[in-house]
Amino acid sequence: MTPYELHYWPGIQGRGEFVRLALEAAGVPYRDMAREPGGREKMMRLLEDRGLAHAPFAPPFLKAGDLLIGQTANILMFLGAHHGLAPADEAGRLWANQLQLTILDFAAEIHDTHHPISSRLFYDDQHEEAKRRTADFLEARAPKFLYYFENALYNNKAGRSWLVGGGLTCADLSLFQVVAGLRYAFPLTMAAFEEQLPLTGALHHRVRDLPNIAAYLASARRIPFNQDDIFRYYPELDRAGAGA
Amino acid sequence: MTPYELHYWPGIQGRGEFVRLALEAAGVPYRDMAREPGGREKMMRLLEDRGLAHAPFAPPFLKAGDLLIGQTANILMFLGAHHGLAPADEAGRLWANQLQLTILDFAAEIHDTHHPISSRLFYDDQHEEAKRRTADFLEARAPKFLYYFENALYNNKAGRSWLVGGGLTCADLSLFQVVAGLRYAFPLTMAAFEEQLPLTGALHHRVRDLPNIAAYLASARRIPFNQDDIFRYYPELDRAGAGA
Repeated sequence: MTPYELHYWPGIQGRGEFVRLALEAAGVPYRDMAREPGGREKMMRLLEDRGLAHAPFAPPFLKAGDLLIGQTANILMFLGAHHGLAPADEAGRLWANQLQLTILDFAAEIHDTHHPISSRLFYDDQHEEAKRRTADFLEARAPKFLYYFENALYNNKAGRSWLVGGGLTCADLSLFQVVAGLRYAFPLTMAAFEEQLPLTGALHHRVRDLPNIAAYLASARRIPFNQDDIFRYYPELDRAGAGA
Repeated sequence: MTPYELHYWPGIQGRGEFVRLALEAAGVPYRDMAREPGGREKMMRLLEDRGLAHAPFAPPFLKAGDLLIGQTANILMFLGAHHGLAPADEAGRLWANQLQLTILDFAAEIHDTHHPISSRLFYDDQHEEAKRRTADFLEARAPKFLYYFENALYNNKAGRSWLVGGGLTCADLSLFQVVAGLRYAFPLTMAAFEEQLPLTGALHHRVRDLPNIAAYLASARRIPFNQDDIFRYYPELDRAGAGA
């Protein structure tokens, strides 16, 4: 099979990371175009090609044979169905997709904590607004999302090891990523939250220790968290959640 | 068949409207719980039930027999597959879902124009930030989204009447709703945009005139646009886009 081609911005994990984790966990061959010379230019040409029948709105997008698939949750639905990372039955598929969409909503809100006004402006040009938004996020939104996922694990009748049924799905991989990112971005606040998130913490460990994921995380393919990404560490924002 | 039960906040169209339009277009029996006495309380009991196996994170959610389905795009994927509002082939389904997710991203950004800091605060408590965010939205984001959908219509090889293939899908219904909402919320700016959106304007008319949709829009079941909703008309925000 022709390897998948993942198109995403170079230098950041971003939304592309949710796709990378699925590709790595499934152990399928793929080219991470951002890491290849000229990869960014190839991505930009596809993004700017106004004649494409199924044009992506934004990265990430995946070339899979003749298919060009955009929107993170949509790519993950495709990969999940083809590589054993989603349930086969309709009820299970819908639940996995529902959780996946909720995790990605959470990631979008996390991004907007440091960019509440515009992605085109620097953080410094919106840091007052960012402080206000982050305080609200850490007080109301983050706990609502985190306890929701903890509760989903708790209520999984097939056991509490995975979010959906008895096996790994893309939703588990994505929740792993969000937990890792929140620990980087909001270490103080997250440590306090995690006292009440035992199942989520255990899921994070379980995903981290999957052989394919452990190998990926130890490789140069895993881009480190950094300050141009969705998850950013600004101490003043973390303190906004600690009531300081 | 037991009628579907749609659970959503009363008094607003919100994200629930994307689901209502699909149910109405398909002509399937459903109960709009928000319109029934005690409907809001029933919804709140489901939202607060921490023992539910497939708990919704937020409204809207749909009870379909034994299934409880949350996340707007997920509900629409279910309805599309069961009621002829989605293509049958994988490539078509993925493309429809990709457009649907992009339309819902657009709606989320539209909401955040008037609530860039917190949904828990009133507009008046964040109207300075709203002005800044809206100016950016109308300058950079709204045209990017709108021209993307116009281009998707233009590039549809099955004709330019619908977004996906040769027939109506949930994505068309949702784009209709966003166009109608933008005309309400940003009449000045939208009129200027629409000069370059002939196919999108024609799609809006085509959806509006579908017999089931025309009947719905003329009925009391269609909640009017209002100032507690995703689409709100604040003249000062519309002028932020007109450069005034």
